[in-house]
Amino acid sequence: MATARPAVMPETRRATKLVEQYRAVRAHTESLAAPLSPEDQTIQSMPDVSPTKWHRAHTTWFFETFLLQPHCAGYHQFHPQFGYLFNSYYETVGARHPRPQRGLLSRPSVEEIAAYRRHVDTAMAAWLDAGDLPSALHDLVVLGLHHEQQHQELLLMDIKHVLSCNPLDPAYDRAPVELAPVIPQRWIEHDGGLLEIGHAGDEFAFDNEQPRHAVYVHPFSIASRPVTNGEWLAFIADDGYRRPELWLSDAWATVQAEGWDAPLYWEAGQMFTLAGMQPIDEHAPVCHVSYYEADAYARWAGARLPTEGEWEVAALDGVGAVWEWTGSAYLPYPGFRPAAGAVGEYNGKFMVNQHVLRGSSRATPPGHARPTYRNFFPPAARWAFSGVRIAQ
Amino acid sequence: MATARPAVMPETRRATKLVEQYRAVRAHTESLAAPLSPEDQTIQSMPDVSPTKWHRAHTTWFFETFLLQPHCAGYHQFHPQFGYLFNSYYETVGARHPRPQRGLLSRPSVEEIAAYRRHVDTAMAAWLDAGDLPSALHDLVVLGLHHEQQHQELLLMDIKHVLSCNPLDPAYDRAPVELAPVIPQRWIEHDGGLLEIGHAGDEFAFDNEQPRHAVYVHPFSIASRPVTNGEWLAFIADDGYRRPELWLSDAWATVQAEGWDAPLYWEAGQMFTLAGMQPIDEHAPVCHVSYYEADAYARWAGARLPTEGEWEVAALDGVGAVWEWTGSAYLPYPGFRPAAGAVGEYNGKFMVNQHVLRGSSRATPPGHARPTYRNFFPPAARWAFSGVRIAQ
Amino acid sequence: MATARPAVMPETRRATKLVEQYRAVRAHTESLAAPLSPEDQTIQSMPDVSPTKWHRAHTTWFFETFLLQPHCAGYHQFHPQFGYLFNSYYETVGARHPRPQRGLLSRPSVEEIAAYRRHVDTAMAAWLDAGDLPSALHDLVVLGLHHEQQHQELLLMDIKHVLSCNPLDPAYDRAPVELAPVIPQRWIEHDGGLLEIGHAGDEFAFDNEQPRHAVYVHPFSIASRPVTNGEWLAFIADDGYRRPELWLSDAWATVQAEGWDAPLYWEAGQMFTLAGMQPIDEHAPVCHVSYYEADAYARWAGARLPTEGEWEVAALDGVGAVWEWTGSAYLPYPGFRPAAGAVGEYNGKFMVNQHVLRGSSRATPPGHARPTYRNFFPPAARWAFSGVRIAQ
Amino acid sequence: MATARPAVMPETRRATKLVEQYRAVRAHTESLAAPLSPEDQTIQSMPDVSPTKWHRAHTTWFFETFLLQPHCAGYHQFHPQFGYLFNSYYETVGARHPRPQRGLLSRPSVEEIAAYRRHVDTAMAAWLDAGDLPSALHDLVVLGLHHEQQHQELLLMDIKHVLSCNPLDPAYDRAPVELAPVIPQRWIEHDGGLLEIGHAGDEFAFDNEQPRHAVYVHPFSIASRPVTNGEWLAFIADDGYRRPELWLSDAWATVQAEGWDAPLYWEAGQMFTLAGMQPIDEHAPVCHVSYYEADAYARWAGARLPTEGEWEVAALDGVGAVWEWTGSAYLPYPGFRPAAGAVGEYNGKFMVNQHVLRGSSRATPPGHARPTYRNFFPPAARWAFSGVRIAQ
Repeated sequence: MATARPAVMPETRRATKLVEQYRAVRAHTESLAAPLSPEDQTIQSMPDVSPTKWHRAHTTWFFETFLLQPHCAGYHQFHPQFGYLFNSYYETVGARHPRPQRGLLSRPSVEEIAAYRRHVDTAMAAWLDAGDLPSALHDLVVLGLHHEQQHQELLLMDIKHVLSCNPLDPAYDRAPVELAPVIPQRWIEHDGGLLEIGHAGDEFAFDNEQPRHAVYVHPFSIASRPVTNGEWLAFIADDGYRRPELWLSDAWATVQAEGWDAPLYWEAGQMFTLAGMQPIDEHAPVCHVSYYEADAYARWAGARLPTEGEWEVAALDGVGAVWEWTGSAYLPYPGFRPAAGAVGEYNGKFMVNQHVLRGSSRATPPGHARPTYRNFFPPAARWAFSGVRIAQ
Repeated sequence: MATARPAVMPETRRATKLVEQYRAVRAHTESLAAPLSPEDQTIQSMPDVSPTKWHRAHTTWFFETFLLQPHCAGYHQFHPQFGYLFNSYYETVGARHPRPQRGLLSRPSVEEIAAYRRHVDTAMAAWLDAGDLPSALHDLVVLGLHHEQQHQELLLMDIKHVLSCNPLDPAYDRAPVELAPVIPQRWIEHDGGLLEIGHAGDEFAFDNEQPRHAVYVHPFSIASRPVTNGEWLAFIADDGYRRPELWLSDAWATVQAEGWDAPLYWEAGQMFTLAGMQPIDEHAPVCHVSYYEADAYARWAGARLPTEGEWEVAALDGVGAVWEWTGSAYLPYPGFRPAAGAVGEYNGKFMVNQHVLRGSSRATPPGHARPTYRNFFPPAARWAFSGVRIAQ
Repeated sequence: MATARPAVMPETRRATKLVEQYRAVRAHTESLAAPLSPEDQTIQSMPDVSPTKWHRAHTTWFFETFLLQPHCAGYHQFHPQFGYLFNSYYETVGARHPRPQRGLLSRPSVEEIAAYRRHVDTAMAAWLDAGDLPSALHDLVVLGLHHEQQHQELLLMDIKHVLSCNPLDPAYDRAPVELAPVIPQRWIEHDGGLLEIGHAGDEFAFDNEQPRHAVYVHPFSIASRPVTNGEWLAFIADDGYRRPELWLSDAWATVQAEGWDAPLYWEAGQMFTLAGMQPIDEHAPVCHVSYYEADAYARWAGARLPTEGEWEVAALDGVGAVWEWTGSAYLPYPGFRPAAGAVGEYNGKFMVNQHVLRGSSRATPPGHARPTYRNFFPPAARWAFSGVRIAQ
Repeated sequence: MATARPAVMPETRRATKLVEQYRAVRAHTESLAAPLSPEDQTIQSMPDVSPTKWHRAHTTWFFETFLLQPHCAGYHQFHPQFGYLFNSYYETVGARHPRPQRGLLSRPSVEEIAAYRRHVDTAMAAWLDAGDLPSALHDLVVLGLHHEQQHQELLLMDIKHVLSCNPLDPAYDRAPVELAPVIPQRWIEHDGGLLEIGHAGDEFAFDNEQPRHAVYVHPFSIASRPVTNGEWLAFIADDGYRRPELWLSDAWATVQAEGWDAPLYWEAGQMFTLAGMQPIDEHAPVCHVSYYEADAYARWAGARLPTEGEWEVAALDGVGAVWEWTGSAYLPYPGFRPAAGAVGEYNGKFMVNQHVLRGSSRATPPGHARPTYRNFFPPAARWAFSGVRIAQ
C-alpha cells in the first residue's frame, strides 16, 4: 500500500500541474487577443493568414475534438457545426471549411467564440481535476497546449500582416519591443564528427524532432549572432536584390514576380511593426525575410546557411530574437514515425517543399522552444518572424 | 419686398425640405445597418461586394468631398485619410484604396464610422439650415441622397452575399418578405411606333436617363408579370442548364466554368434569403439570375427579353418585386452628356459590357425608382435582386 | 419544253457559276497560305488565334460536314477524327477539340491538310457539276464560301499575330500595302429621320444582317474618312493613354493591366506589318485599335463613335481600309431569327459582350463586304484590322 | 625531346578522341530528331516542354557561346539573334527569349537550324582537330557533350508530351521498347555506417555530384527492382489515389487540383508511349509518376523512398529502366562549389524545391549515367521517365 501511494501521488500531482498549465496557456491566448477589436479579429488578409478569432476557436476545437468528445463522459458539444468550421487540416476527422474562406465568417462572433472557450475550459478543468488521466491522454493534453502555443505565435504573425494591409498603419500595441544591443559577429568553430541530433527523453517534443539519431557533421563555423538590419542594408546597397547570380533560380523568379527589394514590412526607410511604423534599427536582427532571401544574402556574404544538424550541435549565442532559416529541407528523420491517430497529421504530412527554421522569436511563448525544435515554412514565406544566421 | 418674399420663401421651403430629406435618407441607412454586428459589417465576400461599414462611410464621404469641403466655410475634415479610403471610383478626386481590399480594413471601426456619419450629418444639417443654397449645390445634395439610396440597396445585396458564404446560414432579419400572390401571366400587346423614352422635366433623374428622345418601337407583346420560381423549376426540369443550344456562347462557357444549375442562393431545394434558408416559393418571382440565364430562359420559353424602350413604353403590371433584365446593352442615349465635374464619372464611364435592368426590387428604397430609371450590371452578375420578364 | 428550258437553264447556269465561285474562293485560301512554311502554319500564338493549317482544314470541314456527308451519296469521309479536330464551335454537331489547344497539333501535317482540301474539292466539284441542287443546299454552299472568305481575313489577322511574336520580325510577304493618299477630314451631315437598315433582297447576307427594319436616327455628322496614324500620334502626345477621364472604366482597367500606350504592333516608332517592320505612315488609317481605344480617342476629339444605324444610312467615303468600330453593341435586330439547323450557331450565339464594326479592311477578300455587313469583336480585341471613324 | 613527346601525344590523342566523341554525340541528336516533321519539331505543349528544334539549336548554342566565340579565332557567328533565342537560363551571358514562348517561333525553320548545326559542327571539328586544347577548354567541350546528352533525353521526354496532346495518338516510332522480364522483388539488406558518396577522380562528373564526402547511413533495406505497373494497379485498386492519409499535404492538394488517378499517359486501360497507345504491361516498371505519387505509393506499401545516400551505397539491381525518385531534397553536398564562369549556373541554382532521382532510363543515352549522377525534378513533375524503388 505504501508503494501504491507514491504511484498515485505523482499521478495526482501531474494532473494538478497539468490543469494549471492548461489555465496558463489558455489565458495567455486570451491576453494576446485582448487588444484587438471584433473587426480586427475577423479579417484574413491572405490565404496563409487566419483571423484571430479563428485561432481562438481552433485551439479550443483541438481540446473538444481530441479529448472532451471521445474521452469525457457527459461532455456536451458547444455547437454542432464548429467541428466543420474550426478543423484546420485533419483529413481524418472529417470535412472542413476551406482555409482561404476563414475571413468570410462574421459568425460566430468574437463574443460567441469567447463563450466557446469558456465552455471548453470549464469542461477541461473539471475533467483534468478528476485526475487519474491515462498517460496517452495526458500526453494529448500536453500536445494540445504546445499546439496552442504555436498558434499564439501564429496569431501575432497573422495580426501583424492584417494590420500591415491597412493604410492607417494601426498598431497592435504601442510599446515597441526592446532589443538587446547586438554584439559584433564572430565565428564559432566546430569540429564536427559523428554526432547525434533530435529529441530523446521524457520531456515533451513533437514527433518530427524524433528519433534522436546519428549524423555525420563536417567541420564548420557558424556566426555568433543573426544578421542585422544594418548588414541587410549593406546587401541592399550592393544591389543584392538586383543581381541574379546571387539567387537560386526559383528565388530570382520570385524576386521579379513580387518586386521584392527589401524584407517584408520595410517601406520608405521604416518598418511596420506590432507597435506601428518604426525606424529601422540597424542593430536589431533582420526579420521577415524568406529562405530565398536568406540564401541569397549568405551567398553575397561569401558564406552559406547552416544545416539543421550544424545548428543543433553548435552551442549558439543570440538565439531567441528571430527564427533562423537553415539550408535543410524539412524531411523526416531516419526512423521517423508520425504520432498515432489523427494527430499524426500534425507534422508529417508537411514534409515536402519547406525548409527548417531553428531557434525561436520574440513572439514565441516562453518555454515553448527547444534546441531540437523544427519549425518549417515554404521558401518564399516572409510573414513568419524569420531571420538569418550564416555559416561556412 | 413683397416680390422678394415669394422668391425667398420657396428657397427656404426647399432648404427645409431638403434637410428633412437628408435626415430621412441618412437615418434609413443606419436602420439597415442596425441588425449587423461589427464583424458582419467588416467582411467583403468577393471583389464586387463592399463591407457594410464601407457603404456607411462612402456615402458620407460623398457629402464631405463634394459639398462640405469645397462649399462649407469652416468645415473641419473628419480624418485626413478617409478621402483615400472611401473614394469608390472617382479618378478626378485623387488616389483611392483598391476595391478588392475593402475587406482588409478592420480600422476605422464600425464605431468610428458611426462618429464620422454624425460629424458630417451635424455639419450638413447646419449648412442646409443656413439656407440660400445655389441651385447647383441643391442638386448636388439631392444627387448625394439618391446616391445613398442606391447604396442602401447595394448594402442589402452585399450583406446577403456575405451571410450566404457562412455555413451557419445566418439571417439578416428573421421576418421573411411577404410577397403578393402571383397573377397568371398574360400578354400585354403594344402597337409600337415612333415614341419617346428617357427623362424630361424638373424632377430628379440621373444623367444616364437623359435626354428624352425619339425611338422607333416595333409592335410587341410583353408579359404581365415576371417569371416565377415555379416556371424556373420547369426550365431546370427540362434540362435548361444542360442544353447549349439555349445559351449564348459566353453564357454557356460561364455555366460550365461556374457549374451553374440554378439561380444564385438556391441550394438543395431551398433558397438563402435575408431571413435565412427558406423554402422555394413557386409563386414568387425568380430572383438572383444573371442576364445569361434570363436570356436562356426566354429562348427556352420561345420568347425573348424586352428592349429597354419596349419596357418603358409599356404600362406594366407587377413591377417592384425584382429588377428586370432587358435585352438592351447599357449605352448612352442619343445626345447624352455626363454631369459636369467629378460626378460626371457617376454613370457614364460604365457604358460598356453591361445590360440594362428596369423597374426596382423589394430592396429598393421607397421613392427611389422611376419608369425611366436605368439600372445596369454585367451579364454574368447574379447577386443583384434581378429577375426576368419576357417579351415577343 | 420551251418553258421547261428556261426553268432548267438558270439552275444550270447557277450551278455552273457556283462551282466556279467555289474553285475561286478555295484557291484564294491556298494562295494566302502559300508563302507560309509548315512551321508557320502550325503555331497558335494566343487562344484567339488559330493556326493557318487549322483555317485551311476547318473551312474544308464545313463543306464536308454540312454538305458532302449529309447530302452527297457515296461521299467517303477523309478521316474519321477530323470532325472532332476541325469543328470550331458548333455544339449541335458534336464534341470538338478545345480552341486553346489548336496549336498543340503537329499532325495532321500541312501536307495532309492539303490532301484533305483536294479530296473535298474533288467531291464538291463533282457534286456541284451534277447540277440540280435544291435551293437550300445551294444557299448552304454559298454560306460555306462566305464562311471561307471570313476565314481568309482571319488567316491574315492570325498569321500577323503569330509572326509578330517572333523577335526576328519575319515578314509574311515583302511588298508593303500601298495606301491611297489620305484626304483631309470633313464632316458629312445627315438629317436622320425614320429610316431602314439591314439586308433585304435575294443577294447573300448573313442572318445577323436581317431583317431590314425601321430605326429612328437623330440628325448627325460623320467624318469623311477614318482617323489616321498622324492623328493618333497627336492623341498619344496629348497623354491620351494616361488620362483616365478619357476612358470607360473597363477600358482604363485594361489600359493599366496590359500597359497599352499605342496601337497593337507599334513598337519603338515603327509598326509590325505583314511586310515586316515598317515606318509609321502618318497618312494611313490607324489600325489594330480596340473599341476601348476608339471610344477614348473619340472622346478626346470631342466626338463619339457612330451607331451602326448612322453608319449604314450615311453615304460614306474612304471605306475599305480598316474595319470601323461603332458605338453599337452587337445585338439581334428586331425580328431576328437565326438560320435553321447547326449553322444557326454561326452568328446568333455571339450576341453579347461585343461591339459592331462596319466596312471592311485591306485584308477582306474582294466582294465579301456589304453596307449591311456586321462584323463584331469584344471591346478589348486589337488583332483585327480595326480602325476608327468619328461622329457627332 | 623524347620526354616532351609523350607529354604531347596524349594531348593529341585526347583531342582526336574528343572530336570523335563530339561527332558521335552530335549525330545522335540528329538521329533522334530524324523521325519528326517540321510541324512536330515546332510545338511546345507546356512551359516545361521545349520544341525539338529548340533542343537542337540550344545544344549548338552552347558550343558557339562558350567555346567558339570566346576561344576560336576567326569564328564567324551564324546569326546575331540566336544568342538571344537559344540561351536557356544563363543570366550571366545576357537576355534571353522567355521559356514559355519557345513554341511561338516558326522561324528559324527546322532547315535553318540544321544549317546552324552544320555550321557549328564544321567550326568545332576544325578547332578540335587543331589540337593543343588547354585542359579547361577540353573540359568545357566535354561538359557541352554531356549537356547535349541530357538534352537528348529531354528531347524524348518533350516530344512524348507533345504527341500525347494530339487526339490522333501519333507515334514517334513504331517499335515499342522491349523490356526485360521483371524479377520478383526481394529486399537487399545493407548495414549502413559511416560511408562516402559523391564523385571523385578524373572521369567527368557534374559539379553537383561533388565533392565526395562522408555520410552516416543507418542500416536499411532496399528493393531489388523498381515498382511495376502491376503493383501500381494494385495501389489504384486499393483506392490509393482517393485516400488522403497516404499523401503529403501538398501532394493531396495536387491530386485533387489535377484530378490524378493514374500515372501520366495512362488512359482507359492503355498507356501512351513513343510507339503510340500500348497495353499496360504489368511486368514493366511503372513510369511517369511524380515524387508525390512515389511517396504515397511507398507509404501505402508500408515502406518509404530511399535517401540518395542509401541508393548510392547499395549495390543495385534493375537500374536503367526508369529514373528512381529518392526521398532526398536536391541540395548542395557539403563543400559544394559551382563550376567557375557562366556554366556555374548549370546545376547549382536549381537547388531548392526539387527532389533527387537516381539511376537512368531507357531514354538516357548510353554512357551518360553514373552511380553518382544526381537528376532532379520538382515533386509534381511527371513527364520525366521517372519511377519508384522502395526502401525500409
